[in-house]
Amino acid sequence: MSKQFVKKITSMEEDFAQWYTDVVTKAKLIDYSSVRGSMIIRPYGYEIWENIKSELDTKIKETGHENVYMPLFIPESLLQKEKDHIEGFAPEVAWVTHGGQEELQERLCVRPTSEVIFAEHYKNIIHSYRDLPKLYNQWSNVVRWEKTTRPFLRTLEFLWQEGHTCHETETEAINEAEKMLTIYSSICTELLAIPVIKGEKTEKEKFAGAKITYTVESLMHDGKALQTATSHFLGDGFAKAFGIEFLDRNGKQQSVHQTSWGFTTRVIGAMIMVHGDNRGLVIPPKVAPTQVVIIPIAQHKEGVLDQAYSLEKRLSKQVRINIDASDKQPGWKFNEYEMQGVPIRLEIGPKDIAADQVVLVRRDTGEKLTISLNDVESKTLEILSTIQDNLYMKASKRMAEKTTSVTNMQGFQEALQIESRLVKAMWCGNTSCEDLIKEKTGATSRCIPYEQESISDKCVYCGRKADKMVYWAKAY
Amino acid sequence: MSKQFVKKITSMEEDFAQWYTDVVTKAKLIDYSSVRGSMIIRPYGYEIWENIKSELDTKIKETGHENVYMPLFIPESLLQKEKDHIEGFAPEVAWVTHGGQEELQERLCVRPTSEVIFAEHYKNIIHSYRDLPKLYNQWSNVVRWEKTTRPFLRTLEFLWQEGHTCHETETEAINEAEKMLTIYSSICTELLAIPVIKGEKTEKEKFAGAKITYTVESLMHDGKALQTATSHFLGDGFAKAFGIEFLDRNGKQQSVHQTSWGFTTRVIGAMIMVHGDNRGLVIPPKVAPTQVVIIPIAQHKEGVLDQAYSLEKRLSKQVRINIDASDKQPGWKFNEYEMQGVPIRLEIGPKDIAADQVVLVRRDTGEKLTISLNDVESKTLEILSTIQDNLYMKASKRMAEKTTSVTNMQGFQEALQIESRLVKAMWCGNTSCEDLIKEKTGATSRCIPYEQESISDKCVYCGRKADKMVYWAKAY
Repeated sequence: MSKQFVKKITSMEEDFAQWYTDVVTKAKLIDYSSVRGSMIIRPYGYEIWENIKSELDTKIKETGHENVYMPLFIPESLLQKEKDHIEGFAPEVAWVTHGGQEELQERLCVRPTSEVIFAEHYKNIIHSYRDLPKLYNQWSNVVRWEKTTRPFLRTLEFLWQEGHTCHETETEAINEAEKMLTIYSSICTELLAIPVIKGEKTEKEKFAGAKITYTVESLMHDGKALQTATSHFLGDGFAKAFGIEFLDRNGKQQSVHQTSWGFTTRVIGAMIMVHGDNRGLVIPPKVAPTQVVIIPIAQHKEGVLDQAYSLEKRLSKQVRINIDASDKQPGWKFNEYEMQGVPIRLEIGPKDIAADQVVLVRRDTGEKLTISLNDVESKTLEILSTIQDNLYMKASKRMAEKTTSVTNMQGFQEALQIESRLVKAMWCGNTSCEDLIKEKTGATSRCIPYEQESISDKCVYCGRKADKMVYWAKAY
Repeated sequence: MSKQFVKKITSMEEDFAQWYTDVVTKAKLIDYSSVRGSMIIRPYGYEIWENIKSELDTKIKETGHENVYMPLFIPESLLQKEKDHIEGFAPEVAWVTHGGQEELQERLCVRPTSEVIFAEHYKNIIHSYRDLPKLYNQWSNVVRWEKTTRPFLRTLEFLWQEGHTCHETETEAINEAEKMLTIYSSICTELLAIPVIKGEKTEKEKFAGAKITYTVESLMHDGKALQTATSHFLGDGFAKAFGIEFLDRNGKQQSVHQTSWGFTTRVIGAMIMVHGDNRGLVIPPKVAPTQVVIIPIAQHKEGVLDQAYSLEKRLSKQVRINIDASDKQPGWKFNEYEMQGVPIRLEIGPKDIAADQVVLVRRDTGEKLTISLNDVESKTLEILSTIQDNLYMKASKRMAEKTTSVTNMQGFQEALQIESRLVKAMWCGNTSCEDLIKEKTGATSRCIPYEQESISDKCVYCGRKADKMVYWAKAY
């Protein structure tokens, strides 16, 4: 029945980019505006972000961090204090030059990230080891002047949290950066059912101003990789540039050791491209704004709507549930909620009522189950949990299938000839090899994973001694 | 004992503005940065905002509104579409003119408010009466290029929520604007213990682009008024300018009727200036980040810290509680938490332990009570509730005392001669009288209250027939 109503979305295989655009707009996650490269996050999209945010905020607080709010604008002179940082960010910031009718004496940049403004504040409030650690976080918007944009993945403005911490020792700061990476990883895997690879960025790919950038990388449906979240050990670069010093336990003046880490709305793009299919969005139950939708069948018949509403009432204590009792055709509704990626659809009509049952349809597999009305609470919860697990398993399986180990450049190029993939290869550590690999294959180094394997002992590019296994891929 | 440790804050009576600055900085609510007119909201300040936000967000959602997120930047041409709106806001917007190294073809303003960007989106998504009402809200930062700034009260950037709704009829839109004012009023009175006057703004004082502006006004310790929150009935001005039309129930094309309403971090300024005293902040228990602080006395003595921690553990199930077991003097601690406005202090020392009791000190009255350890949970909750009520009563009493009814300009001027006050006076409705009153007294019309009284039948300024009683005051 449902086929006749299918909304036209481009298939993934035909044009993945167009499929993505179709899904984000038709599932009503976003709308465009007259502001180039910015997006309107619509209620359905924003609720996904709220669900992610609530879980992440809890974990951030449980680990002893405190939320603050820093100014949006950064004076140009402040941004310039840390050299690597300004070099990295200058090309992509928006500049405010006028306030009201007046031209400003000094330009203000709209924050692309807030290391420098935190640094300035830390200098004011940190004096002794007793003031450490300082574990701050903020939820905010940031702006990066991107040329090519795509909803969620790369936009002029995005929402995120940015953590900024100060520590007595380097070891403590490194532990903090790694701890936050673990939290990011668990949000990806446990909440969003996105398998990730944890590791470090190469020198070339790390954050402007960081000593080490830790990353969680994930693989999209089309075989391209996405940097899903990063955490940085900043060392004492900002501390030295801004004079963030403290009297240590031995009465000696020292610079603090810092970290910063961020998790953004970009992850919603990852969720779409990891789980979606040709019928639209597939949302993992744990973050789904609507986990269950009830569609009454032959709703004009006596008793159907009453039963449907009473079912909604029963389930609403346990799950985020909606009922669509509009006068649209059931087939239209099926497609609509499939497009929106609602994990479970419950159909209830006169026959079901007579038999004391409902029909449950899984979004992830399309499977139809008939469930006794008595068991509906427990079964629904059980299946939501099954869907969550299944999505993670499917994505993990795909990631494994789309990963190839190579030992030479011929193998590297062949691996990427037909489709994008994740490539494992050894690397000598030289940026020049990294550059040339990119030139030859379009793939960039995604990360040096924590879980190392020895594929060979030679760099895939130059053949020199290599003891680092690196993941490579074309990336968003 | 505590006197010898008193931190120097300027007394209110000596210099209210300096008292305010001392309190916001010494209670660690904010810090300044090198960004003129912007503030850093520190953890203690931000947690107050989170508590307010959480309560208000719940009420906004319970009344059927959905959260969204709109772009920060607004193209100049878009801002200019509604004439009154641009006239009101143009003098106070920040302009982005460069992105990266390039000059933009069209300037972008950093949103001072988002009516126009919501309007553009509404035009895209509203087509039929079935699409109405649209009840959207967003939590965001906004920027207004103010010349003179003061933390929370008037800053270049502030945090708020802004609701923007569309309706089929004018009546429905007016009801919505009034409903939101009621919610704002309840947040002020029930959560923040701030008494408010509800009413309408005069033509002169209303929002740029609104037909009616509803307001909740409150009175500060120094007798000045503060516009605490506003809600606007926009009519169809934006709808006409942007073409937001729908097919009504009779098949006729119509413009929607709109509202907008906002509640900001400014309210924290009101809370400080309504409840604070010469020992610092006084925070109403319902929004206090720390509702109870435990100070161990003679904590080096055996058993004291154990008992203090076990007390904390017991109470932490019911209240937001902290313990200060640092090696600072109790007197220093007393002053510190008084400065921070923590509603209840519990002191526990060897004598208390021997007698199975704790000493409870109320921040609002300074009253000391001895409480049996058995009753500590129930007594603490009871007293938190008493403090909340008492703060509201005290503020209401002060507001009544600082309000004067006048029937002529001599009385008006005399009322404001010694100190700022709230003045009730009749007004004919002419803006010219309003202007002249301001010129003569420095007072502006705060609102035409819902609760009218007939003080006389003549305008306080021109003596012509008047049937509107208006509240006037010097204002923040």
